[in-house]
Amino acid sequence: MVVDIPKVAIGIDIGGTNIKVGLVDRIGAVLDQFTLKTAEYPTPRPLADDLSAQIEELAENYALLGIGIGAPNGNFYRGSIEHPPNLAWKGVTPFASWMAEATGVPCFLTNDANAAALGEMLFGAAKGMSDFLFITLGTGLGSGIVVGGKLVYGHDGTAGEIGHVIVEPGGRPCGCGRRGCLEQYASATGVVITYRELNPDASPDTTSRGISERAASGEQAALDAFEQTAKVLGLALANSVAYTQPEAIFLFGGLAAAGDLLFEPVRRHFEANLLNIYQGKTTILPSGLSESDAAILGAASLIWQQQL
Amino acid sequence: MVVDIPKVAIGIDIGGTNIKVGLVDRIGAVLDQFTLKTAEYPTPRPLADDLSAQIEELAENYALLGIGIGAPNGNFYRGSIEHPPNLAWKGVTPFASWMAEATGVPCFLTNDANAAALGEMLFGAAKGMSDFLFITLGTGLGSGIVVGGKLVYGHDGTAGEIGHVIVEPGGRPCGCGRRGCLEQYASATGVVITYRELNPDASPDTTSRGISERAASGEQAALDAFEQTAKVLGLALANSVAYTQPEAIFLFGGLAAAGDLLFEPVRRHFEANLLNIYQGKTTILPSGLSESDAAILGAASLIWQQQL
Repeated sequence: MVVDIPKVAIGIDIGGTNIKVGLVDRIGAVLDQFTLKTAEYPTPRPLADDLSAQIEELAENYALLGIGIGAPNGNFYRGSIEHPPNLAWKGVTPFASWMAEATGVPCFLTNDANAAALGEMLFGAAKGMSDFLFITLGTGLGSGIVVGGKLVYGHDGTAGEIGHVIVEPGGRPCGCGRRGCLEQYASATGVVITYRELNPDASPDTTSRGISERAASGEQAALDAFEQTAKVLGLALANSVAYTQPEAIFLFGGLAAAGDLLFEPVRRHFEANLLNIYQGKTTILPSGLSESDAAILGAASLIWQQQL
Repeated sequence: MVVDIPKVAIGIDIGGTNIKVGLVDRIGAVLDQFTLKTAEYPTPRPLADDLSAQIEELAENYALLGIGIGAPNGNFYRGSIEHPPNLAWKGVTPFASWMAEATGVPCFLTNDANAAALGEMLFGAAKGMSDFLFITLGTGLGSGIVVGGKLVYGHDGTAGEIGHVIVEPGGRPCGCGRRGCLEQYASATGVVITYRELNPDASPDTTSRGISERAASGEQAALDAFEQTAKVLGLALANSVAYTQPEAIFLFGGLAAAGDLLFEPVRRHFEANLLNIYQGKTTILPSGLSESDAAILGAASLIWQQQL
């Protein structure tokens, strides 16, 4: 009797709080998963060791095709994590090589938003699309750019940082050390800053979710905060079309969960700012990935995209 | 005796004043050429007829591989010229199909700056580069974006309009009907507007070349005009890196001819505005194409890129 051993890929998402690991099959189902706490790894080598050991166990009944990793400041060409702003380790860590050596399977690594863009293309709402943008609106604004069916990595491996386009010279300070970056206006963080500017009496622990709820119940300052956020984001997305003319722009992440509160004004400002030849040709859509699986699916897509 | 008939491509550049046609060989030499006056063709069909007849004559001793056309608002996928702002014909003209039918050889058409970007890659200073931007600073600001060795056309054929990124919401009126587009600040037109703002007594027929000459001789208002132009362009180019992370950005056209007067301050503002992970990795360079041949070489590259 011959039994086909099911093929799987491992997807790893390295975040500031959690490191999520999942076993992903060909159709994008997460068959099994586990989570490590980022804070327990002040240096990267023990993390690679633990991940390798646990992955070996997780995948023991499968044919493991490879490991994909999404990480902050991930460089695809070098497979390295470079000066990550929200991890304890500094410098350049050749994380993909370590994992490939330890496990004996191919390992690819890229920026977390790039990985999620691949996930959208293979398993989400961008199936069959050749040209699209993927935007994640969380603490910051991450982005992945797909052109001709391929993720754009750029000449040095770190293309697609639309969150760090300067939209307001001299504006709000950004974690990158500069001022006026898009992500300081269009992100969960940005909407909170805007709301507190509009409503100085707001509680210091106001969250973007709290502002969504206030807006949904009709509070004017909260509605204004969404309007101002959408004005900045809609213009920035219209400007982005002038680069790669995507078929669709997917919005994902905490702030995108606000739904029509965000999408309606973003679409309005987007269309109002598009160059005539681009009007009516690019759609702003919610991501087709679930918030909980997106990071793992995206990372695993680094492996699956080479198989399909 | 067997004689090899030399293979050639035709490059056609359709501009607001002249239509230039050249016979281009494999190494980018323009073997023969002629020019028609755009104003003599108030409708496009007679132009296609005249071009086809004259090209047949021009190429009669060669093996003609095909015809490449650079045109304002050229759509690569449809081979059409769509609502060109500076031609007498309106609407959508399927110019490439007409030419292919009349001549019996393949014909491709794209936006003029896209064509010039291809020319830079095949015959200019971008030889061997996979990721670069090509910027033409003439009456407007045109651009071509190359990613992974391929021109980015976008999902509808008209990607790469960096000149119409809005850099100053509500700013200078643009020919596209909107306000604050980059090309109203960073172009030959833009530097003249800036100079006249700085120097209200300037002659109404001041040109960008005249301002270059004044700057070269040390006139403060002219130097300031270049500084302000470079400030806007340097920031816009730094923001552009966040999309496709090019290895180089080539500046071409009338304003780029100002040389160090433009390049020095553009490079300074560019580096000052780059995200940390991009610093020192993208070079701003003059085009390697001669002003006179660039348009023809670029258009012919639409054919030659398929042969090399």
